[in-house]
This record gives sequence, structure tokens and C-alpha cells, in this order.
Amino acid sequence: MTDADRLGELPTPQLVLDEARMLRNVARLRARLAPHGVSLRPHLKTVKSVEVARRVLAGGNGPATVSTLQEAEVFAAAGIPDILYAVGIAPGKLNRVLALRATGCDLSVILDSREQAEAVAAASRAAGDPIPVLIEIDSDGHRAGLRPDDPALPAIGRILHAGGAALRGVLTHAGESYGVSGDEAHAAFAERERAAAVRAAETLRAAGLPCPTVSVGSTPTAHAARNLDGVTEVRAGVYVFFDLVMAGIGVCSTDDIALSVLATVIGHQRERGWILVDAGWMAMSRDRGTATQAVDQGYGLVCDAEGRVLGDLVMSAASQEHGTLSLRPGSTKVLPELPVGTRLRILPNHACATAAQFGDYAVLPAEAGAPLARWSRFGGW
Amino acid sequence: MTDADRLGELPTPQLVLDEARMLRNVARLRARLAPHGVSLRPHLKTVKSVEVARRVLAGGNGPATVSTLQEAEVFAAAGIPDILYAVGIAPGKLNRVLALRATGCDLSVILDSREQAEAVAAASRAAGDPIPVLIEIDSDGHRAGLRPDDPALPAIGRILHAGGAALRGVLTHAGESYGVSGDEAHAAFAERERAAAVRAAETLRAAGLPCPTVSVGSTPTAHAARNLDGVTEVRAGVYVFFDLVMAGIGVCSTDDIALSVLATVIGHQRERGWILVDAGWMAMSRDRGTATQAVDQGYGLVCDAEGRVLGDLVMSAASQEHGTLSLRPGSTKVLPELPVGTRLRILPNHACATAAQFGDYAVLPAEAGAPLARWSRFGGW
Repeated sequence: MTDADRLGELPTPQLVLDEARMLRNVARLRARLAPHGVSLRPHLKTVKSVEVARRVLAGGNGPATVSTLQEAEVFAAAGIPDILYAVGIAPGKLNRVLALRATGCDLSVILDSREQAEAVAAASRAAGDPIPVLIEIDSDGHRAGLRPDDPALPAIGRILHAGGAALRGVLTHAGESYGVSGDEAHAAFAERERAAAVRAAETLRAAGLPCPTVSVGSTPTAHAARNLDGVTEVRAGVYVFFDLVMAGIGVCSTDDIALSVLATVIGHQRERGWILVDAGWMAMSRDRGTATQAVDQGYGLVCDAEGRVLGDLVMSAASQEHGTLSLRPGSTKVLPELPVGTRLRILPNHACATAAQFGDYAVLPAEAGAPLARWSRFGGW
Repeated sequence: MTDADRLGELPTPQLVLDEARMLRNVARLRARLAPHGVSLRPHLKTVKSVEVARRVLAGGNGPATVSTLQEAEVFAAAGIPDILYAVGIAPGKLNRVLALRATGCDLSVILDSREQAEAVAAASRAAGDPIPVLIEIDSDGHRAGLRPDDPALPAIGRILHAGGAALRGVLTHAGESYGVSGDEAHAAFAERERAAAVRAAETLRAAGLPCPTVSVGSTPTAHAARNLDGVTEVRAGVYVFFDLVMAGIGVCSTDDIALSVLATVIGHQRERGWILVDAGWMAMSRDRGTATQAVDQGYGLVCDAEGRVLGDLVMSAASQEHGTLSLRPGSTKVLPELPVGTRLRILPNHACATAAQFGDYAVLPAEAGAPLARWSRFGGW
């Protein structure tokens, strides 16, 4: 039974997940990290699905990272007991954190300021529940976090430790690693993550503070790290599905991309070299992450219904519900003949963004011959 | 009662709709078109909400345009009887079109090829239900449609008319009008829409074919058209909420933008001039529609909780759940002091894309002192 047969008459556009590719991606990172003796805490912001989480987490319910309290609540309700909410905590969200912790979930938070630390300590004391906290460290100037040598670091540690919260350690994320290409460059960012986090941990310990967890990671650095001495856990998210941005910086190939959008040809502008499909940016998302890479994939790279890349055909423009397919500029190929009604699969620039546009996955199960499955996704905050 | 009071402790990020601004925008276009004697068929792809549709459509359930069959189904179930599905029809969707028509909704479709016309005619005959069709005309090279002088136009008209479908007329959309600024430039595109649609209608009529409907429109052209002779209806969508892209081309001011995203400050990188909030691209969407305009608004323009623009502060970068606010390059202003926990409202580049990231609107009712309301939105296809 071919993929096209299994996809049958599915209305388009529809998000499609190739489970075999996903399981291969999951196994690859597990194998990559095993010799390092660190634990893997996958980031579930990409998948937002309990069915996918079961296949990604160690033992089906191992440690997880999330980007919203909604994710924490859904995954905790599914019995996942150890969840890190990895966006700097807003004091107004602490009641919700405490309510979820009261259900038995070991939910931890991150922060990088005295104001946040004081709010978390006060909330911990008021509830009689020491909220576990990782202090966020800035290893690459990407976004949030304290420099590892910032004198505020031990001060914040003391506010937490003495104030009634549970100081659990430090965390960093080298988001800038997405902007460089190749294993050497990613390994250098991995070492920056490691060095910054370990140095911060040493600073806390030198101040007599606990720091059991040293958490690092991003998909590029997790696949390239050579030395993880002093690190206790690695986080990564998009590796589960991979995408064109990750292929563009050499972390995967397009054959590893487990996510695509099924679309139908609805028209042609032949003299302009355009093929129109019923998937626009509402389906693909507005993400143009490959625009600044060596190969610009437009809004996505076009495959046939079996998932085979069709040469240089990309979604070069998108309106809300229209995608315009054309050959990549400079291509010497001939525009393929794709009549109205032809079904195609389009690989996304950014799996997190494209998946978020859909309420479920149409799953091509890894088991040969198994019929299409549907796995639900959730959204919101 | 201030807006900030009405928004109270609402969890962030949250989509906020200012009903008074929305009603003003709706009234403005109605008044603008009234002297022209054309009907207005608002595009509901922006709003995706029955509560909003009631306030936008003539008499609460007048003619509507949609971009997906899901929209058609939801609005038809709400009793809206006349709906145009304005994306080129895929033959595989005709069963769903017929099923919805069988419930009593006058659902019409659009197309621009013989293959589609033959499929619609065959489906109409098989069902004994003449599916109403507008032929799509290309007035500006933007996307789909036949040139008004394409010999395929009368041929397609005949396939439909003789084949059992209901040829209802022609439709065009000058999507390129979004790329030019100012009333004169938009009026020129409005005239291109009118001229192309009227010429196509004359071609059909000269061939002995019916063409009762001549449908044109986009938000910029609808607000600028000077002569609508020969046009029977105008379509527009984003005008209901407006957004920074529309402000950037002079169709509205930032004070007209009815949609914003409520967010909370979660951190600072003071030496870099950054303020971090808990709304990233998952909340704002990845739309960067102002990137190519005279004023680049980043991922959004920052207002205080009352909706007042805070000078030159924009969301200059976004991750999935983090927004980085900074002063626009070249600004002479001072970064405002916004402590952790401060609540802000961020105006979107593109209302359609930002609204699509949320499951509901928190509505600031037009009635003074009325408490916050919640209106649901839907998504999917």
C-alpha cells in the first residue's frame, strides 16, 4: 500500500506525519547522547500531542520540556510527571504553576531576574510548596538569561534558596546555533552552551548554593556536542520532525523530514510558470526561515504524494489559502505537468510553526500496510 | 472603567478585540460604498467568528465571502444563506459543496479552467443541482484567474452554462494593491479591477451567456474606488480589524486597528536595549508584512494596556513564545521602564494571520463600562 493510497481522499490541506521518519529521528538523538551519560528532556512545543510525546519521551513519560502552561497542563494530565516550563516565568502565572504542582506534577520554572526570584520565593512560601527553579544563563547573546559571570547570579540563587523556593540548577539554550551551518560550527555552539552552564553551576556551588541540574540544548547543538562534561541533561525539540531550516544548516537531510502538508492543485498560470495549490500560509505558516539560508525554499519544498522531492519546485508565494508553486530561480528543470486535482506533499520550513496551523496529524504509521491514523494536536496557552 | 481594568487578570498572551474600533471600521466602508449602489460581500476569512460576522454582514446575515469550506459550513449553520467560496474549486471538494447546498445554503464557487468547469458541470448534473459559479479574472497578475481577453473565458462560460452549472458571473481581486501606498495608487488598482471585471462580463454577455454578478474587491481598492459602474458587488476582509500593513499603505491609521495581543513583560537585557515578553511568533504569527514597507514594525507595534502606542517600541525579534521588544533602529526615544509583570498590547502586522493563532477573542465591548466578553473563533479546513 503506497503512501498515496493510505492518504486516500483526505481533504486538503492536511498535516501529514511520517511515523517511520519520526521514530528514526528520535532514535538517532537517543543513540547520539547515550555515550555521554546525560538525560534527554525533549521539548514538546513542536509536537503538542500526547500520542507523539509517548513516542518521544524516555519510557513514554520521561522528563519533558514545554513552552506554555497549557502544554504543561495537557501533558501532566496525560501522566507525564516531570515537566520544565522553559520560558521566563511571569509572576502572574505562579498560581497556575502551583495549582498544577498540587496535582502531583513536578513542574519547574526558569527565570533570570531578582524580581522573578522574589515572586517565586514568596509564592513558594505562601503555598508551602518550594517551586523548583532553574536560573537561565545566556551563552550566545540570543535572547534571555544572565551571563555566567553576572554578579546577580549568586544573588538570585540566594533569594531562591533562602526564600523558600527550590534552586534546582541552571539552563541555557544557544538559539544562535540555528544561524550557522555544519557540524563544526554547531559543535562550537555546543561547547559555548556547556562552558557557560558549567561555569554558572560552579559559581552557584562556590556560593554554597545547590545546583543539581545543568541543562543545555538546541537541536543543532544536541546533534554536534562532543564534550558534555558537567552537563546533566540535554534539551531539543524540532529534531523529532526536522524541517527545511534544519536541513539547510546540515543537521538532517530532506529525507529525514517527517512532516508535510498534503495539498491539491487548483490551477495554473502557465505563461508565468506557476502552479496553484489549496495550501497557502494558513497551512504552511508565514515562516520563511530558509529565506536567509544558502537555498531559499520559499514557503516549502514540493514532493509528490509519496513524499519524493520533485526537483526544484518550491512554494514561491503564498496567500491565506493559495500557494503558488514555481521552479526555484536559476533552475534548469522543466515545470512538471501537474493537472488540476493532483495531490502533493509540501515540506515545511519550520516544523513548529507549520504544525501549529493544524488541529491534528494524519499519520502514516511506521508499520507497513497499516491504515492512516489520526493523532490530535492542541494549541493555545 | 479603563481597558486595563476590563482586561483584568486575563492570562497572556491573549487576542484582544476593541469592538468600538471594529464597528467604526465596518461603518466606514458601508458609508463609503453606499453612494455607489453596490452590495458589500465581506470576506469572513479574517474574522472566523459568528459573533463578529453578525456585526459585519448586512442585516447580520447578508452576503458573505469565505476562504475555506469549513468557514462556509460554520457560517451556513449559523443561518447565513448566501456564501461565496472564493478559492479556485478543487474537483475533490464538490461533494462537500453539494452537501452544504443541500442544507439550503446558496453556496457559490469560483474557477478559472476548463477542467474545473467540466467537473463542476458534471457534479451539478449528477446532483440535479446547478452549482453557482463565478469565473475568476486576473486584473493585476497577482495570483489566479483568466485575463479578460482570454479566449478560454467564453469557452468556460459555455461549459458551465450548457453543462448544467449556474453561470453567475465574474470575480476579480487586485491583490497587488497591498503593495502600493496611498489613495491615488489604490484608486488606480480599483479601476483595474473594475475594467477587467466589466470587460470579462461584456465578453460573456456578447457570447450570449448570463453574467448577473460582477464582483471586485480588496480592502485597499474598496476604500479608494471612485467609479464602480458595471460592478454589482464589492468584497473586502481585513478592513474589519485593520492592521499595521494597512496602516503602512495609508488605508487606515494605527488608531483604527481593532486587534491586539495582550502580553506580559518577563525580562530584560538592559545593555542590549531589550525587553522580553511572553508573546512570540506563536501569538503574533510569523507574518512580517511591514518588512518591505517604509516603516518596518518588526513583529508588531507596542502599546500600553490601554491601547496607546508607546512611541518607537516594536517587537524586533520573536521566538515561539518569546518576543523581544526594542526601539526601532534610528529612534531617538528612550527605552521605557517596563518592569517584569507589566502588561502591554501589541498591534499585529497582519490581522488575518495573528487572529488565526488564537481560539477566541477577549472583547472590549463598545458599550462604555460593559465587562469583557469572550467570542469564539474557529480554524481548520
